[in-house]
Amino acid sequence: QVKRMLNGLSPVEIAHLLESSPPPSRRALWRLVDKEKEGDILQELPDDIQAQFLRRMDAQEVAHITEGMDADDVADILQQLPDRVIKEVLKAMGEQDRQRIETVLSYDEDTAGGMMDTDTITVRPRFTLDVVLRYLRRHDELPASTDNLIVVNRKDEFLGLLPLSKLLTTDPSITVREVMSTDAEPIDAQLPDTEVANLFERNDWVSAPVVDEDGKVVGRITIDDVVDVIREDADHSLMSMAGLDEEEDTFAPVMRTTPRRAIWLGVNLITAITASAVISIFQDTIDKVVALAVLMPIVASMGGVAGSQTLTVVIRGMALSQVGRHNLGYLLSKEATVGLINGFIWALVMGGIAAYWFQDINLAIIIAAAMVINLLTAATMGALLPVLLRAMKIDPALAGSVALTTVTDVVGFFAFLGLATYFYA
Amino acid sequence: QVKRMLNGLSPVEIAHLLESSPPPSRRALWRLVDKEKEGDILQELPDDIQAQFLRRMDAQEVAHITEGMDADDVADILQQLPDRVIKEVLKAMGEQDRQRIETVLSYDEDTAGGMMDTDTITVRPRFTLDVVLRYLRRHDELPASTDNLIVVNRKDEFLGLLPLSKLLTTDPSITVREVMSTDAEPIDAQLPDTEVANLFERNDWVSAPVVDEDGKVVGRITIDDVVDVIREDADHSLMSMAGLDEEEDTFAPVMRTTPRRAIWLGVNLITAITASAVISIFQDTIDKVVALAVLMPIVASMGGVAGSQTLTVVIRGMALSQVGRHNLGYLLSKEATVGLINGFIWALVMGGIAAYWFQDINLAIIIAAAMVINLLTAATMGALLPVLLRAMKIDPALAGSVALTTVTDVVGFFAFLGLATYFYA
Ligand SMILES: [Mg+2]
Ligand SMILES: [Mg+2]
Ligand SMILES: [Mg+2]
Ligand SMILES: [Mg+2]
Ligand SMILES: [Mg+2]
Ligand SMILES: [Mg+2]
Ligand SMILES: [Mg+2]
Ligand SMILES: [Mg+2]
Ligand SMILES: [Mg+2]
Ligand SMILES: [Mg+2]
Ligand SMILES: [Mg+2]
Ligand SMILES: [Mg+2]
Ligand SMILES: [Mg+2]
Repeated sequence: QVKRMLNGLSPVEIAHLLESSPPPSRRALWRLVDKEKEGDILQELPDDIQAQFLRRMDAQEVAHITEGMDADDVADILQQLPDRVIKEVLKAMGEQDRQRIETVLSYDEDTAGGMMDTDTITVRPRFTLDVVLRYLRRHDELPASTDNLIVVNRKDEFLGLLPLSKLLTTDPSITVREVMSTDAEPIDAQLPDTEVANLFERNDWVSAPVVDEDGKVVGRITIDDVVDVIREDADHSLMSMAGLDEEEDTFAPVMRTTPRRAIWLGVNLITAITASAVISIFQDTIDKVVALAVLMPIVASMGGVAGSQTLTVVIRGMALSQVGRHNLGYLLSKEATVGLINGFIWALVMGGIAAYWFQDINLAIIIAAAMVINLLTAATMGALLPVLLRAMKIDPALAGSVALTTVTDVVGFFAFLGLATYFYA
Repeated sequence: QVKRMLNGLSPVEIAHLLESSPPPSRRALWRLVDKEKEGDILQELPDDIQAQFLRRMDAQEVAHITEGMDADDVADILQQLPDRVIKEVLKAMGEQDRQRIETVLSYDEDTAGGMMDTDTITVRPRFTLDVVLRYLRRHDELPASTDNLIVVNRKDEFLGLLPLSKLLTTDPSITVREVMSTDAEPIDAQLPDTEVANLFERNDWVSAPVVDEDGKVVGRITIDDVVDVIREDADHSLMSMAGLDEEEDTFAPVMRTTPRRAIWLGVNLITAITASAVISIFQDTIDKVVALAVLMPIVASMGGVAGSQTLTVVIRGMALSQVGRHNLGYLLSKEATVGLINGFIWALVMGGIAAYWFQDINLAIIIAAAMVINLLTAATMGALLPVLLRAMKIDPALAGSVALTTVTDVVGFFAFLGLATYFYA
């Protein structure tokens, strides 16, 4: 009965149910799924979970369940398998399917070629619209999300697009050449998927043709796959800032999650010990004035927060390709000014609190000065670090927050305890 | 010459250029833009910058530049203006435009009704496809991203969808009723935009009809606007975790940025002072063993990192609507176990380091025990807090990280210094 209910759901709904289930229920549910639905469900699952289910299938089975699926979706699934198994699956497929999928697999996963579908409808410029209409009527259906037909010459080179909207509203005796639109450039198969997503987002495209280095049309990209890239890229910033992978399975078993998290904690331990080493330089001062130990975390914490605000804004700005050489100067001076002003505001407040709390005006001056220094440093580094990291080809979303915390902790403790040593010496 | 170059760009490109420019250059560039392009550019800008430019226009101008734009885009722009000005702009519009825009404005900005367009092509079920084709040919063009025609009865109630793909591949003598698809439900105008985005994403829709409470078709939503919602929602988690607004303008002037950031720093100051208050309870112990001051931040920091990893995973899981009552128990016990195991691993490492560094086995035991306690607490709270906050209708992405840091700092300092007081007393 559960089985009947489950198979009454659409593949997307079943995929979402699987994603939201702990691994043991996942396996139980998967066993209840109808064989012929497995492919459609699999393509909706994140890589991590796909790989899990695929591990239990042989090449024959994989070839069977991916039959009739779009080439890009099959490629997505195959990429979870070891190379040896991919070859076997391809061998088990029909000739035509194999060719389509090999085309997509020949491009990197994160490029236009890797996300394109190979089913395209192409027409010639000299056709009249009436001929095109009759040609379409010979099809059983059009490929999903078809909003344009692709106009090519006899060498399959891209010439323009014929929007279905034009085809339906224009006099049928007119030729394709006269109504086709030639202002949109086709997408290069090597273009990174993030840039493909930017193009779609900015131009409000539903689908776009993909060409190889010779200008030959090799496939088309549809908006549904672009939406997945947008979601992944956006998740990437969020998850990376906590040292996580965007494909991280929320319900992954303990034994898979623990080592991944452990590495990040290890990296953080190194930065925390660095900060402690700075404190240990000033042990004698703390021994004299124990209030320093009480207030010391405040300086570091405020620097960390101010820095992470700037860092987040800049990382988001970089993801939207807003930040470049021409505006880095403005951004830097703006963030530094904001850091300085906020440094002064909260230094004043915290100075007042410290003076009242410990009845010590020196302590108030020291913490106030240290806060101004640390917030200015935090804001400046928050803006500079991601740009530097990117130039060094290190992912700023991943390395940025650790690097920044190290800086704000070290500078915060050093400024506060250093000033205190000078004042109380 | 700059002017000619600028106006050679597409509205999207100009909008991106404006977004990526510091405010002074923005105003200078805006003055060079052709009047008739202003509307198209404006609709591509984020709310913050839209508002800035709109403030300098009168109602007449706004009505003029929004002429011919989609109702949803005009509504987006008008929502940046004070109510009084909106009324004036509407008055300055033609009767038909006013009605379309008033329909969209009557729904909340963050609902299906607020993001829909009112230009729809509807057909009757008893038409033959041939009649539909001739009807379409009377149009100059179809509304953007039209992949389906909407089938309605004479009361304008939704009956089904006629995909253009069916229209083009089926025998024209067949009626709409025979080929229309009735499996997709229309979208309720009151549905929150985030859920609209989920529907589109899961079903790979290009457009979808919107109905009011009586089932009457009032408009349609297109994928380009859904993509904007997806982008905004994803940005929301990232930006909120740093206390920022997702519409935050990367290059906003200092005077606009400073107060917004200041508030968040103020909130953080309160939590930092709370942590300091905990430390101050143990001043005497620190006075006896100054090494405690050196190691104390490590315990808090490791807890903070472990907690924020769990928090991020859960917040992302909630955004993808994966986390619910049925799997919260599994999630909680999983995260707690991961926290405990990683607590033991790094407690062992850190205990070893502390023993060697300070040649004090007691200190090693104390920091190890405190780390296990804090990492377990951090993981548990990282999973529980967002769920609790959501139940209290507080945005977990915004309040989660501050609340969590407070917990990990307080528990970290309390466990470490409390154990030390007990051991060294
Ligand atoms: Mg995938
Ligand atoms: Mg990618
Ligand atoms: Mg792919
Ligand atoms: Mg767009
Ligand atoms: Mg596809
Ligand atoms: Mg897909
Ligand atoms: Mg807007
Ligand atoms: Mg539009
Ligand atoms: Mg919204
Ligand atoms: Mg809107
Ligand atoms: Mg999808
Ligand atoms: Mg629209
Ligand atoms: Mg739009």
